[in-house]
Amino acid sequence: MKQYNVAIVGATGLVGQTFIKVLEQRNFPIESISLFASDRSAGKKMFVNHQEIEVKETAPESFQGIDIALFSAGADISLHFSPIAAQAGAVVIDNSAAFRMIPAVPLVVPEVNPEDIKKHKGIIANPNCSTIQMVVALYPLHKVNPIKRIIVDTYQAVSGTGSAAIDELTMQAKQVLEGQGTIPHVYPHQIAFNILPEIDVFLDNGYTKEEWKMVNETRKIMHADDIAISATCARVPVFNGHSEAVHVEFSQTMSPDEARRILSQAPGVKLLDDPVISLYPQPWSASGTDEVYVGRIRQDVSHPRGLAMWIAADNVRKGAALNAVQIAEEIIKREWIHPKGGADEKVRALIDSDGNSL
Amino acid sequence: MKQYNVAIVGATGLVGQTFIKVLEQRNFPIESISLFASDRSAGKKMFVNHQEIEVKETAPESFQGIDIALFSAGADISLHFSPIAAQAGAVVIDNSAAFRMIPAVPLVVPEVNPEDIKKHKGIIANPNCSTIQMVVALYPLHKVNPIKRIIVDTYQAVSGTGSAAIDELTMQAKQVLEGQGTIPHVYPHQIAFNILPEIDVFLDNGYTKEEWKMVNETRKIMHADDIAISATCARVPVFNGHSEAVHVEFSQTMSPDEARRILSQAPGVKLLDDPVISLYPQPWSASGTDEVYVGRIRQDVSHPRGLAMWIAADNVRKGAALNAVQIAEEIIKREWIHPKGGADEKVRALIDSDGNSL
Repeated sequence: MKQYNVAIVGATGLVGQTFIKVLEQRNFPIESISLFASDRSAGKKMFVNHQEIEVKETAPESFQGIDIALFSAGADISLHFSPIAAQAGAVVIDNSAAFRMIPAVPLVVPEVNPEDIKKHKGIIANPNCSTIQMVVALYPLHKVNPIKRIIVDTYQAVSGTGSAAIDELTMQAKQVLEGQGTIPHVYPHQIAFNILPEIDVFLDNGYTKEEWKMVNETRKIMHADDIAISATCARVPVFNGHSEAVHVEFSQTMSPDEARRILSQAPGVKLLDDPVISLYPQPWSASGTDEVYVGRIRQDVSHPRGLAMWIAADNVRKGAALNAVQIAEEIIKREWIHPKGGADEKVRALIDSDGNSL
Repeated sequence: MKQYNVAIVGATGLVGQTFIKVLEQRNFPIESISLFASDRSAGKKMFVNHQEIEVKETAPESFQGIDIALFSAGADISLHFSPIAAQAGAVVIDNSAAFRMIPAVPLVVPEVNPEDIKKHKGIIANPNCSTIQMVVALYPLHKVNPIKRIIVDTYQAVSGTGSAAIDELTMQAKQVLEGQGTIPHVYPHQIAFNILPEIDVFLDNGYTKEEWKMVNETRKIMHADDIAISATCARVPVFNGHSEAVHVEFSQTMSPDEARRILSQAPGVKLLDDPVISLYPQPWSASGTDEVYVGRIRQDVSHPRGLAMWIAADNVRKGAALNAVQIAEEIIKREWIHPKGGADEKVRALIDSDGNSL
């Protein structure tokens, strides 16, 4: 079986560490693995498959001979190094928002639009965490009965912000329990025992970028530009695992039983829906697992063709690292690794002019 | 100024204690105060206006000479003792769900439907906490531009369950932070660093009673039986203060600016809406205050006549104790204390036949 030279950019971060864990757990066919990060983290040692690897600073020459480069080091690093990596012949799977809405860059959830990978020019974008878990649950229903409108309100864990946010929640929770005051650093206000309806920056229209990602990315992944979508994204004092209250309007009526039947056979979905025994998705138990959990499926009584449901998943795994590795697996399985020099001028021009737009 | 003989039933509970605090803070005109609870709590001493009062067991004869009886001891106690208290001449303001949906019983939020108090027959119902804060924020908009549909997803604090739930969150949070396991008692699953989409019991239609209360009580309070409403209610690891993501569809378009203008003058509402400086409602800062806070007001981009917003309030104060005391103040101000023997046969018949229905 062919093996691949893999690079991880942002290896020391929360998603970077989870890339390693997921690659190991799934026996990803690794020929060699290179770990990159900022100069601050260079020199650190990390273990991959019981082998000690030194983290190096990301540099233009880092990508020589790399087949697959998994990026999770923020949009600026992605904007700078992804085209270089693609030019060097690697397929980049980028977890940042830098390239997601560029038309020529595939934005992929393997359970939903794996075929989109095929047209990649060296860079494939991994969607936003909240969007991934929602489309895994909704796409199987949409295929049967096209969705007209989605209203989603999220309950997002601090792990989505990174390990500093996990430390902040830990520290603040201890301080509150000991009757002390807290000082926010990572978030604008205290997150322990509090809720903050602010994720990513605010746009002029009053939405946050996070909310707007759910609108645009859902449409792009599902190839459904006419779905009306509105989201409120809130940060909750949960370490890991995002939850979502979702209200969907379909083209035709869909019964809860039909939705359950479809979702019980849907890829990547696990149905947890038995109110009588308090069985429903929870972030605490979703954490550390691969599935997107769906439950609380019921008629949306406010709309004749509506369903309401509750979705939870591990936002660092399925919402980031796992989804990226699944994309890499698709690339391998379908032999969609293109010859070197794949990032063509057109894509790079788009990136330059538009890379910061979303 | 006339003073009143006040009774509190359920005085030792979280809402009961807050009744006392609110009565003190608002200089409620108290002639005498009697504190009642279960036999388990009888004999306890509590302070009201620096005066030590002994808690007595609630009994049929407890209400002789009482003008105003504030109940918060659960639906069973309310069903049993409220008609007795009303028969003895007291006006009962009941915080349980026992009487809320009985047509002849007023269900009142003073900022919304104070006139409904007038027709009381001895019992006035205090609405569900999540419903109160939502209607305080939405009614001023509804008056100008009738609401057609509401979708609301809640982030509800454990104080809504009572003091045992506050203890459970405290204990479990400590255990998790120390790397220990947790054992749930009050809730079906761990609440620390977790989210539970289950509040009150499940109904056959897949909704919880809490969600269904938001449907029925909103319609009754706002006198708007045709508003379509759907809710998902979730318990979050917050000690006090409920938050709500709300999506509203109006009869006509309403701009965010118009909504802000209306809400900036609305009774009981405080607008906190300046994203640039991360100003929006938060349960942590709403806790211990009287206002219903509204922010994140923006076009709901999924509907041509929609607005989205974020609401937070202290669920034990405005969601329970404060609202009840405000009802009592209205009764006094408008001289709506009726002569003794106010609970007529018709109401009591309805209670007997229907009291457990919601």
